[in-house]
Amino acid sequence: MEKETARIEAFSDGVFAIAITLLVLELHVPELSDGRDPKLLMQELSKQWPGYFAFIISFFSIFIMWANHHKVFKQIYRRNTAIMFANGIILFLASLVSYPSALLARFLLTPSAQAAISVYTGMFVLVNLAYNLLWYLASRDRSLLRPELTDAAIVKLQQNYLYGLPTYLLAFGLSFFYPLTALGICVLLWCFWAVSSKKIELQ
Amino acid sequence: MEKETARIEAFSDGVFAIAITLLVLELHVPELSDGRDPKLLMQELSKQWPGYFAFIISFFSIFIMWANHHKVFKQIYRRNTAIMFANGIILFLASLVSYPSALLARFLLTPSAQAAISVYTGMFVLVNLAYNLLWYLASRDRSLLRPELTDAAIVKLQQNYLYGLPTYLLAFGLSFFYPLTALGICVLLWCFWAVSSKKIELQ
Amino acid sequence: MEKETARIEAFSDGVFAIAITLLVLELHVPELSDGRDPKLLMQELSKQWPGYFAFIISFFSIFIMWANHHKVFKQIYRRNTAIMFANGIILFLASLVSYPSALLARFLLTPSAQAAISVYTGMFVLVNLAYNLLWYLASRDRSLLRPELTDAAIVKLQQNYLYGLPTYLLAFGLSFFYPLTALGICVLLWCFWAVSSKKIELQ
Amino acid sequence: MEKETARIEAFSDGVFAIAITLLVLELHVPELSDGRDPKLLMQELSKQWPGYFAFIISFFSIFIMWANHHKVFKQIYRRNTAIMFANGIILFLASLVSYPSALLARFLLTPSAQAAISVYTGMFVLVNLAYNLLWYLASRDRSLLRPELTDAAIVKLQQNYLYGLPTYLLAFGLSFFYPLTALGICVLLWCFWAVSSKKIELQ
Repeated sequence: MEKETARIEAFSDGVFAIAITLLVLELHVPELSDGRDPKLLMQELSKQWPGYFAFIISFFSIFIMWANHHKVFKQIYRRNTAIMFANGIILFLASLVSYPSALLARFLLTPSAQAAISVYTGMFVLVNLAYNLLWYLASRDRSLLRPELTDAAIVKLQQNYLYGLPTYLLAFGLSFFYPLTALGICVLLWCFWAVSSKKIELQ
Repeated sequence: MEKETARIEAFSDGVFAIAITLLVLELHVPELSDGRDPKLLMQELSKQWPGYFAFIISFFSIFIMWANHHKVFKQIYRRNTAIMFANGIILFLASLVSYPSALLARFLLTPSAQAAISVYTGMFVLVNLAYNLLWYLASRDRSLLRPELTDAAIVKLQQNYLYGLPTYLLAFGLSFFYPLTALGICVLLWCFWAVSSKKIELQ
Repeated sequence: MEKETARIEAFSDGVFAIAITLLVLELHVPELSDGRDPKLLMQELSKQWPGYFAFIISFFSIFIMWANHHKVFKQIYRRNTAIMFANGIILFLASLVSYPSALLARFLLTPSAQAAISVYTGMFVLVNLAYNLLWYLASRDRSLLRPELTDAAIVKLQQNYLYGLPTYLLAFGLSFFYPLTALGICVLLWCFWAVSSKKIELQ
Repeated sequence: MEKETARIEAFSDGVFAIAITLLVLELHVPELSDGRDPKLLMQELSKQWPGYFAFIISFFSIFIMWANHHKVFKQIYRRNTAIMFANGIILFLASLVSYPSALLARFLLTPSAQAAISVYTGMFVLVNLAYNLLWYLASRDRSLLRPELTDAAIVKLQQNYLYGLPTYLLAFGLSFFYPLTALGICVLLWCFWAVSSKKIELQ
């Protein structure tokens, strides 16, 4: 069976690549008048650490989204309207990441940090739901999938996404009371995925 | 017959992917002084709903444009200057969408809403005309098309585009008197396309 | 002989696609206070015509650059450092177009129009030189080219680029004295290319 | 053995293409009031030369990064988590280049030039380390590499990257005392690479 999702993957790769690269536009050159002390630039750059932090975690969260997309579409050989739609939602969320990321960078050190972190963690609840939806829609119709794929592998992939959901929901819930803890949970989850991704890779 | 439009499709995919991802740059971080009430950020974010609305409908309108482009070029195997030109106009309009979208986001809640909506709906009259032009140019020379394509399928694809035209024209005309109704018609048309796209898919 | 320039073409397509889509960022939403007369938005939009004009001609000039790139690389099968370098210059100029385009949009109706038009037309002298360089470097080593390519076709392609050079030089020279005439020459040249590109296409 | 890194290369090409094209957004249209002397625009444009300089060297540094990426991935046929991670770091740094480049453009003629140049040269120490890491991770497991690749070629490629490291470290160290010399060393190194890349190309 020929794989007919090549152009969807190419388009999705494009959106992920652009979304991940646009993040840098949220790093702003410090405003300094020219006549000042040469050491001031380093001080001003240091003060921008929430921007670097948001840039780094958002970059790698989109990178993980892309790697997951890659992994799921290796199993999807045919497409239908529902798959297109679920993929559209994933791309929508991927392109949107830079906005909560900019909110995080701007408000992390202000009294509004809690709201910014709730938006940021809530975003990834939606991302997780979108991947669950995509895999649910693909796996309920075996004729869409790579013919050699075993039932065990399908269940394994499904569990992989479902298993992130309670963690993200926990982070989102906590963000209203302990925002920094909530953010830490998300970052730890991504580190765990990066490290453990070898094991959950489907053959 | 070998398909010789691969690089056109790759380039077009690139333009669609960038156009759809640049939309997020129109979402702006609210300007708040740091010392304010923590609840203010959520209030400010809520006030930006016209921006989110414009982002969502523009994202999915470009997504539908891309899916249509995909569908048309599956039938086009050879290219000539006229096809290149019509495709150029489609890409031009796709890259332009973010501008009427930004106007809509900025002016939806102001007395200038009518003008912004007329520009926005007028934009999609042009998009529809461009797709009609592309398919007209392609279908009048059968040597450009996939050899197995039947006459019935050609007519069906043509009707598919022509059928959107009166709806867009109606929306554009109404936008001068009932702008919100006009906008609603466009959104309903996109929802209808998303839902019904299975049926009109050519085999 | 296998074509080994596929990844160069893919990367170049990416740069052209992004350069052409970023042009829209130079269109700015008019600044209006919310309480004004509803007709003001259309008036403000009308005043921005130099921006639309610059957007349109720059879009189609990059589109023609891409179509030319496509045409040249259909004949190039192998690459060396010189080809990589010449292609790098072409991509550099393609990514730069949005800057002279923004200058043109901003200053077309001001006393600085002449300087903006000289920069704009001078830009396309460089673009033409870069294409001449690429084709010179490729054609002097037949082992880089598609084996079936005839001498006549090589000469024809070379003349195609050389023939644009005096026109661009004329436009650049005139831009210091009759800037609008100079701009008109460039636009006419692009229209001529778009219309006549069928004839100069190599088989 | 089938090459399974095609989608990684496509995604990476996308990131490089976008990163290189976004650099132009750091060139700003001069702010002039409309009624001024027509010669002022050329003067204002001339004053922006640090911006052009930063644009040019950053463009070609990303271009060299891409060419290197191309060269390394021609030898990598299979991927694992470590390769994905090292590639992620390279893409992260590629997408980041525009920020130190903007700092360089803004502060090159100010008392803060030293800090901006230290950031800029330090950036390329990290880039070099990331390429060394990628090649180290790929070359320690021969099953990931193109089967025909000889030991000699592996060592040669490794030396190629290691050899840049002391130069970048020297430039970074010097940047604290002789910033312009440090910048000159980086630019000379890139010129040297561009000229000598033929020789170090692996067959």
